[in-house]
Amino acid sequence: MQNFQLSLDSIFLRAEQFYPDKTVYTGGPAPAKLTYGEWADRTRRLGGVLDTLGISADGRVGTFAWNSGRHLELYFAAPCTGRVLHTLNIRLFPDQVVYIANHAEDEVVFVDRSLLGLFLPLLDRLPLLRHIVVMDDLPAGADRLEVPDDPRFHDYEVLLAAAEPVEFHVEDENQAAAMCYTSGTTGNPKGVVYSHRSTWLHSIGVLTNAGIGLDETDTVMPVVPMFHANAWGLAHAAPMAGASLVFPGPDMTPQGILKLLQEQEVTLSAGVPTIWQGVLPLLDGVELPKLRRIPCGGSAVPLALSEAFREKLGRPILQAWGMTETSPVATASHVPARNRDLAEDEQAHLRSRQGLPLPGVQVRIVEPGSITPLPWDDEATGELQVCGPWIAAEYYQPDEPVQLTTEDGWMKTGDVAAIDRFGSVRLVDRTKDLVKSGGEWISSVELENLLMAHPDVKEAAVIGVRHPKWDERPLACVVLQEGATVTGDEILEYLRPQVAKWWLPDAVEFIDEVPKTSVGKFSKKDLRTRFADYHLEE
Amino acid sequence: MQNFQLSLDSIFLRAEQFYPDKTVYTGGPAPAKLTYGEWADRTRRLGGVLDTLGISADGRVGTFAWNSGRHLELYFAAPCTGRVLHTLNIRLFPDQVVYIANHAEDEVVFVDRSLLGLFLPLLDRLPLLRHIVVMDDLPAGADRLEVPDDPRFHDYEVLLAAAEPVEFHVEDENQAAAMCYTSGTTGNPKGVVYSHRSTWLHSIGVLTNAGIGLDETDTVMPVVPMFHANAWGLAHAAPMAGASLVFPGPDMTPQGILKLLQEQEVTLSAGVPTIWQGVLPLLDGVELPKLRRIPCGGSAVPLALSEAFREKLGRPILQAWGMTETSPVATASHVPARNRDLAEDEQAHLRSRQGLPLPGVQVRIVEPGSITPLPWDDEATGELQVCGPWIAAEYYQPDEPVQLTTEDGWMKTGDVAAIDRFGSVRLVDRTKDLVKSGGEWISSVELENLLMAHPDVKEAAVIGVRHPKWDERPLACVVLQEGATVTGDEILEYLRPQVAKWWLPDAVEFIDEVPKTSVGKFSKKDLRTRFADYHLEE
Ligand SMILES: Nc1ncnc2c1ncn2[C@@H]1O[C@H](COP(=O)(O)OP(=O)(O)OP(=O)(O)O)[C@@H](O)[C@H]1O
Ligand SMILES: Nc1ncnc2c1ncn2[C@@H]1O[C@H](COP(=O)(O)OP(=O)(O)OP(=O)(O)O)[C@@H](O)[C@H]1O
Ligand SMILES: [Mg+2]
Ligand SMILES: [Mg+2]
Repeated sequence: MQNFQLSLDSIFLRAEQFYPDKTVYTGGPAPAKLTYGEWADRTRRLGGVLDTLGISADGRVGTFAWNSGRHLELYFAAPCTGRVLHTLNIRLFPDQVVYIANHAEDEVVFVDRSLLGLFLPLLDRLPLLRHIVVMDDLPAGADRLEVPDDPRFHDYEVLLAAAEPVEFHVEDENQAAAMCYTSGTTGNPKGVVYSHRSTWLHSIGVLTNAGIGLDETDTVMPVVPMFHANAWGLAHAAPMAGASLVFPGPDMTPQGILKLLQEQEVTLSAGVPTIWQGVLPLLDGVELPKLRRIPCGGSAVPLALSEAFREKLGRPILQAWGMTETSPVATASHVPARNRDLAEDEQAHLRSRQGLPLPGVQVRIVEPGSITPLPWDDEATGELQVCGPWIAAEYYQPDEPVQLTTEDGWMKTGDVAAIDRFGSVRLVDRTKDLVKSGGEWISSVELENLLMAHPDVKEAAVIGVRHPKWDERPLACVVLQEGATVTGDEILEYLRPQVAKWWLPDAVEFIDEVPKTSVGKFSKKDLRTRFADYHLEE
Repeated sequence: MQNFQLSLDSIFLRAEQFYPDKTVYTGGPAPAKLTYGEWADRTRRLGGVLDTLGISADGRVGTFAWNSGRHLELYFAAPCTGRVLHTLNIRLFPDQVVYIANHAEDEVVFVDRSLLGLFLPLLDRLPLLRHIVVMDDLPAGADRLEVPDDPRFHDYEVLLAAAEPVEFHVEDENQAAAMCYTSGTTGNPKGVVYSHRSTWLHSIGVLTNAGIGLDETDTVMPVVPMFHANAWGLAHAAPMAGASLVFPGPDMTPQGILKLLQEQEVTLSAGVPTIWQGVLPLLDGVELPKLRRIPCGGSAVPLALSEAFREKLGRPILQAWGMTETSPVATASHVPARNRDLAEDEQAHLRSRQGLPLPGVQVRIVEPGSITPLPWDDEATGELQVCGPWIAAEYYQPDEPVQLTTEDGWMKTGDVAAIDRFGSVRLVDRTKDLVKSGGEWISSVELENLLMAHPDVKEAAVIGVRHPKWDERPLACVVLQEGATVTGDEILEYLRPQVAKWWLPDAVEFIDEVPKTSVGKFSKKDLRTRFADYHLEE
């Protein structure tokens, strides 16, 4: 067989050669639409820009940007010229951004002009940065933060106009293509390096119907940020498939997202549950006949949310599970053919599982701390471990040594799951979020799922709080729908018939909002801090 | 990233773990149905059998068999224990089978009992063969050819019952998994060796919607033989997808195939045009509501055939192009999204193209004998060249040196094609079949397509015959529909308005049947021999 390297230039070439008329649309206050043909030409020029700027052959190219067509240019120009794309999370604390950019040794950062205000204060603490390229995403006449009078600053379009398009070539599929840091839900973000090979394989895995199943008939809108685990692979999979792309740009409001879904006739759109929770109240009387698939993950998709989408739009949410460490898509929760005759509520329960691994990925659950597999009976729970061609083996230069991989080559996810006899994963909780009550585990995820099915509950997060007798007991932190008046006791009464007696939370606290992480997940770390001194009676 | 090998054991494991209830059905006089669970157990035992028989660690395991569940067991047991599956073409001339089995150095051959009559006469000329395992595919009470009293002979089921299941493990994805010889349409078959990696990638390519797009909701019937380019990858792709499989066994009659399509509720079935041409007359009044996709290739799919399927069943044929050397699926001819509003006859023309490369495959056309790319304007024609992770670099120990690969790493296909501006391939002809008239080319494929659209024409093949002035001129060899009375002149009159004047065949010869190759393609080699002395006037 030919020694053909699985590298991103071949994905780029597909979009350029076969789909030059497909489009890349960026929303926001200064909307822009390019054809893939135009995009490809710009991307080749951007490769020339990286050469002109003197970025090292394998240098890290940082981005500090919204989802946009320009961001997609960077997604390919950096790796296809041998460099490494590094997408910085614009919502992290300044200290974290500084730490990460220095840790990755970014030589250049491409910053959206609308984000300069966030970025400039960090500049003094980024000594390795040789260039800052500003991408002007503001409409004509808008207020613009001035670009400092500093020779390191450049304008994206000016550079592009002056550059020559380059030929792309990647020698070795195992070369680094990109890096991402984890979301920082449980602690400091950790770096993961993706190879061309892993990204190529992840992309084609995403294209299969066992994955996300997109193809050239689709118009794909990744609402999930391009700095959050590569926009779940959609920014690579769409060009590979020849699907048009729609990016929200800086407007991440529910209204803005809904407008794009409608106006751009999006067929497939992906985001974390918080995004769809935000869009949900706007859906009354709205029809989105083109929208055929709504992938969602990053945290558990509440059954009630998916069902609400099914009721309002006729299409439920497609849950997927993954991690920055798994490229990220590892499982997807399609209702298996054998179950499609089940009643709708039973199918909804199946959809609330994390589902089956994509082709290429293998799963097991083990007794925590061991490599002894547990049975697939949907009862036994243990640490979920995965292996496959797009699963990380290690973190990028961790500050403290982390043993990500077991002695027999599987990745430890830190998630706890059960697996049914057909291999469908049901995530019980993160190890760190399990409530450990009297030596037994209580799944915060399951309790939240039940709580969020209550009509008066908008959001709910369950954390463990110290208990004199049981070590830890669950506390339900509940955000009510506007105008709702239900009491804590009523909520507990509602739960009581649905859970084992000892799973019932000891208390309900009403809060204004569940704190969110940089990518919109429930931040239980923050909740635990807030309720650190919570006092429970024996 | 993890150093995960793309090997067939991971495909096997998917079927075993996630789809144990999906089925493998074998038709014919002794039908049999297994679940994937049972199949997987048998396949693991078969691995044990290969050990017990003492087959070398990388020994070639020959098969001489119909499409069947047992054949599928061999498809995985051989490569997943490190051996190399070698599927012998049961329809070749005895001399060719002997040559190929010796050339591949097969240590064991698994023979269907119904094929013993073909196989036994070869035995004395296969000195390397250490074992012959007979797979009894005959019904109870049927006449059975006696198995020779020779210690090298074994019964498949006896061996399996005595064997222990083994663990599968493949060290290196670049290891050989299987080998096939080409169909021998243009000369002696040539061997191609597939690696685990190439087969794995081909399988997942086939799963995408740009490929064949099968998934776990499908019931897949490969009518294309398992000895013909790996049944076009379906015997690997279906277990990877979790799709049930239906094999025709020894009954390859149109009636038998139609019966299976109906009774087994097949959703996807693939075969060469001859197969579907045979099934077509049976389709009147037949409904096949489950059949959603009919992949077809190996030779050009006549537009009239595809349209007849669309008219009768509501679904046209999906044309695909490939070669034994390309694993084989390289392109597939889905009507692009941008063209789905076209009139049906225009879409039919698009479907008569060979279509777009699968993700991973790249195409170009070049000036024959050079590596200079020609434009993609659908006008320029040149040799089609391909590259990708499942494209062969060389033949297996060819008797005479063959330069399959260009100096810059592309495979020379020996096919002539045009490419349109969106990368869709239109095959003009095989280089060897082009009619060279006065220094210009005439496409035999295009003439045949037009001829076969004539209502009275059942089959038509066009070959070049010697001409005193023009070197070669086209001769149309036509098989009429039963009872038809059209004359040669009438056929030429029918063609005249549809082709350039100098493309019009010089003569029409009526024949009883177009000779076919071992896999059901038109054998122009045989026609050329038959009409070698054909006399054309100046
Ligand atoms: N469908 C899902 N259901 C439940 N949990 C999910 C799902 N998808 C992802 N997750 C959770 O998200 C995690 C991966 O998220 P990500 O890689 O964004 O970083 P993080 O784990 O949130 O942050 P950090 O590792 O820095 O603490 C998984 O380990 C899992 O806990
Ligand atoms: N869809 C198609 N349309 C036209 N021709 C096709 C199509 N698919 C395959 N072919 C022809 O079949 C060839 C590949 O066939 P295969 O590998 O079975 O061996 P062969 O070329 O027929 O035999 P040999 O190489 O031994 O002469 C291609 O090179 C092409 O000529
Ligand atoms: Mg994590
Ligand atoms: Mg050939």
